Amino acid sequence: MTASTSLFILHPRLNLYYKPCTTILFPSRLNIYLRHFSQAPTVPLFSSISFALRRNRRLGIPGNFISQNLRTHSFSPCSAIPAQSVSLNSSDNDGGGGRSGALSSPPVMEVLEKIDVNPPKGTRDFPPEEMRLRNWLFHNFREVSRLFGFEEVDYPVLESEALFIRKAGEEIRDQLYSFEDRGNRRVALRPELTPSLARLVIQKGKSVSLPLKWFAIGQCWRYERMTRGRRREHYQWNMDIIGVPEVTAEAELISSIVTFLKRLGITASDVGFKVSSRKVLQEVLRRYSIPDNLFGQVCIIIDKIEKIPQDEIKRELNSAGIAEDAVFDLLQILSVKSLDKLEEVLGSAGDAVADLKQLFSLAEKFGYSEWIQFDASIVRGLAYYTGIVFEGFDREGKLRAICGGGRYDRLLSTFGGNDIPACGFGFGDAVIVELLKEKGLLPDLSLQVQNIVCPLDQELQGAAATVATILRQKGQSVDLVLQNKPLKWVFKRAARINAGRLILVGNSEWQRGMVGVKILSTGEQYEIKLNDLD
Amino acid sequence: MTASTSLFILHPRLNLYYKPCTTILFPSRLNIYLRHFSQAPTVPLFSSISFALRRNRRLGIPGNFISQNLRTHSFSPCSAIPAQSVSLNSSDNDGGGGRSGALSSPPVMEVLEKIDVNPPKGTRDFPPEEMRLRNWLFHNFREVSRLFGFEEVDYPVLESEALFIRKAGEEIRDQLYSFEDRGNRRVALRPELTPSLARLVIQKGKSVSLPLKWFAIGQCWRYERMTRGRRREHYQWNMDIIGVPEVTAEAELISSIVTFLKRLGITASDVGFKVSSRKVLQEVLRRYSIPDNLFGQVCIIIDKIEKIPQDEIKRELNSAGIAEDAVFDLLQILSVKSLDKLEEVLGSAGDAVADLKQLFSLAEKFGYSEWIQFDASIVRGLAYYTGIVFEGFDREGKLRAICGGGRYDRLLSTFGGNDIPACGFGFGDAVIVELLKEKGLLPDLSLQVQNIVCPLDQELQGAAATVATILRQKGQSVDLVLQNKPLKWVFKRAARINAGRLILVGNSEWQRGMVGVKILSTGEQYEIKLNDLD
Repeated sequence: MTASTSLFILHPRLNLYYKPCTTILFPSRLNIYLRHFSQAPTVPLFSSISFALRRNRRLGIPGNFISQNLRTHSFSPCSAIPAQSVSLNSSDNDGGGGRSGALSSPPVMEVLEKIDVNPPKGTRDFPPEEMRLRNWLFHNFREVSRLFGFEEVDYPVLESEALFIRKAGEEIRDQLYSFEDRGNRRVALRPELTPSLARLVIQKGKSVSLPLKWFAIGQCWRYERMTRGRRREHYQWNMDIIGVPEVTAEAELISSIVTFLKRLGITASDVGFKVSSRKVLQEVLRRYSIPDNLFGQVCIIIDKIEKIPQDEIKRELNSAGIAEDAVFDLLQILSVKSLDKLEEVLGSAGDAVADLKQLFSLAEKFGYSEWIQFDASIVRGLAYYTGIVFEGFDREGKLRAICGGGRYDRLLSTFGGNDIPACGFGFGDAVIVELLKEKGLLPDLSLQVQNIVCPLDQELQGAAATVATILRQKGQSVDLVLQNKPLKWVFKRAARINAGRLILVGNSEWQRGMVGVKILSTGEQYEIKLNDLD
Repeated sequence: MTASTSLFILHPRLNLYYKPCTTILFPSRLNIYLRHFSQAPTVPLFSSISFALRRNRRLGIPGNFISQNLRTHSFSPCSAIPAQSVSLNSSDNDGGGGRSGALSSPPVMEVLEKIDVNPPKGTRDFPPEEMRLRNWLFHNFREVSRLFGFEEVDYPVLESEALFIRKAGEEIRDQLYSFEDRGNRRVALRPELTPSLARLVIQKGKSVSLPLKWFAIGQCWRYERMTRGRRREHYQWNMDIIGVPEVTAEAELISSIVTFLKRLGITASDVGFKVSSRKVLQEVLRRYSIPDNLFGQVCIIIDKIEKIPQDEIKRELNSAGIAEDAVFDLLQILSVKSLDKLEEVLGSAGDAVADLKQLFSLAEKFGYSEWIQFDASIVRGLAYYTGIVFEGFDREGKLRAICGGGRYDRLLSTFGGNDIPACGFGFGDAVIVELLKEKGLLPDLSLQVQNIVCPLDQELQGAAATVATILRQKGQSVDLVLQNKPLKWVFKRAARINAGRLILVGNSEWQRGMVGVKILSTGEQYEIKLNDLD
């Protein structure tokens, strides 16, 4: 009869106390979790749960495995069951296809699984305080975009997987949240916004007049290994200029980021931009007659230079078909940190030097010279960049890149579209918050409700509703007290929501068409006619 | 040697013209799409592509299937290739593991697929005009929520699948966008926001003080069959009150929806709310001693009453374990359309009648009596509702429900949490826009940029950047002309973006520290010192 055991797995975070008792008692609000039934270790019969717990502990069996014969042993919870433990209803108890009805087969309970109260790994909830920060950040993204005359756009979070699959060996490809939908389409949660932008621009075709200046604030997903400060989703502010081949476009984009950072109180001594151009690498490749189609792949390999050993970089470049001497030259040029030196190496005939010189000259006119510096090692990890590339970094070197972008003049053609010169940047919502924390620049954002309206007895709930409605019609925010609560409670709530005024609806005042007002900052109190309230 | 054919699939939307020629010519910017190579029908060799096209058409083979032996036949495009057709680079031609190098195996080209320029089926892009509408709508959601003292929250779009899997047979379960992530977790794009809210409330536990008044505007996903106006994603405005058992909470929620609708110009003759309580059904079930745990399932079945035949409803109720007489009573009560009649049927002792009476009384005080009506047939399709339920509908009966909500006092315990009385609603972004269209209430939202700044020659691009920066620092929005363009073009652009002023940066003025200003609405023109510009 040892087969007649049922295995309970109690949630390890539940703090239960048991006393042996003789009747089977399942309080309807006791949580009992039975899971992984078939895989669970078989543990001999015990005379009581507390004994089982002790024995399990001794045997090294996790504390949440408890074996118990339902027919001969039972338990009831004592007082210390936390309020979180609930919901075993009778259907869970008497249903289930696993039981045979005989004495040897006691009822098998339906498998219940306690919900993990945390969001999936790498994702975030936004409770009110976090949401206020997010809204404040997004408001600044939007305000700066508005100042620069950009229009907001968005795309589906779920796109065709094909949109993100490029051949250059980008990290992004292996990090896709992709799956097959119920219609057998390969789809993916977008890891970035630019491919969707390109898709939409192609779709719009000649119906839009260039240049387009578009911005978006969208959530992006990457299945990355989780390390400190790295999550699997983030929001990204993108600004893109479609249809301008001149470097003025990149200069304008960097200006908008600088404007944003300044609004937040960040200075050029906190953040800088490293700027280069992929044309630098391209000019080296052309010297060695390396076909243009290897360009993206070479950039992706070189972008990894700070993450993997240089020998590995060399090997990868070799196996991509780049000869030893070209590899040497490529790696040499990455160490160049000034435009003069670059001109020395590349000559002044090519576009790379000309573009960069123009950008630095424009930066002066825009007023952000002290924010930017040339650095040939900046390549960026996306295959589609073709010209200027840039990256925002914290000067203390503690954080990942704050933002990054560049020119991608040939992205549209990889999707079967007509190429249009374009550039843009992505600016995540995570690193900037880290930086603001570091610099003590996080704003103080608390809930503020203008009025709290409270009926003084239950019969006046309707009257209070009328008062709240009148105030709301006048554009005033109102927290209406919906329950019969003591005034002490109301004052506490008023403080929590930073209410400006407390409006009390009392019987005698109400009969005279009046309400009581208390200005909470000063303590000032008065009665006012309902119609005069505003 | 018939094995030595390669199959090309040219994109059907490409409008190519071919002339036979004798050399293999792959212009680097000609798009050739080769897909489904292994499954493609084998088509005999043709001497020219145009012949192949003609023959295919004759045979009824789709126009985009063309068979061509690379070694013996070739083609080159003539002038009429549209600019959209691009990007077959040499790596696509000479790479690939599929070829063996022998004459009998011509090079197999790498598979390229032209990107579908449309968003995945059932999803939307938000180009600027759509985004302005969405922002306007969301702004109104937020404004009303603010007036009611609600705090904004959000949750991950991607949640654990378990959060959405309930046993009551809801439609929602079969419509989940769910998949296994790279860490073998079952996850789902959220189909609704309430389960995430419940999860977060449980997580927060005693750290938050009740009642919570939270709102969220989040994208939700359902894999539904596509019909007119039905998409697979929508944004949903949710407002929830956690911690108030009284009907005042539901009354407040409906008041906020009415406030929202009024802001948009919608009246009580356009939209109404049908209100009932699930306690009506519960009281019937209890009469027949039907266990409470069948309640959710019964509601889900009854909610389908307008979609499937009544016999089918009866059958489903029977097989759920409801006896004939109870089924009869349940279906009877659904036709009740007045509170008086309901009281007649149920008696006045139960909560159902009391709750509803209180709600209608409060509606009067809130000032929205003419918007609501009792209708026992309203049940709502989510298993977790326990009390008042309501649904907004267009009085012309053309559209799906505009919004819906109700009380869900026992949701938290199904996730292993401590039950807290709660109610809330969801309000989608799709039906309301349909309604606004119907009623001619869609707002006119056009792009408006305050200034357009234009250098009069290329050398002044930097000067124009300076002017733009000064204006932006003063909070003015500026569209900076980034290219050297004729004035005619600039005026056209100014009109398109509804610019208020055109600021012209000319050489002689600039040397005097001046710029030219043209007020575009009046045609007024003047010069102004740079420093006086604001």
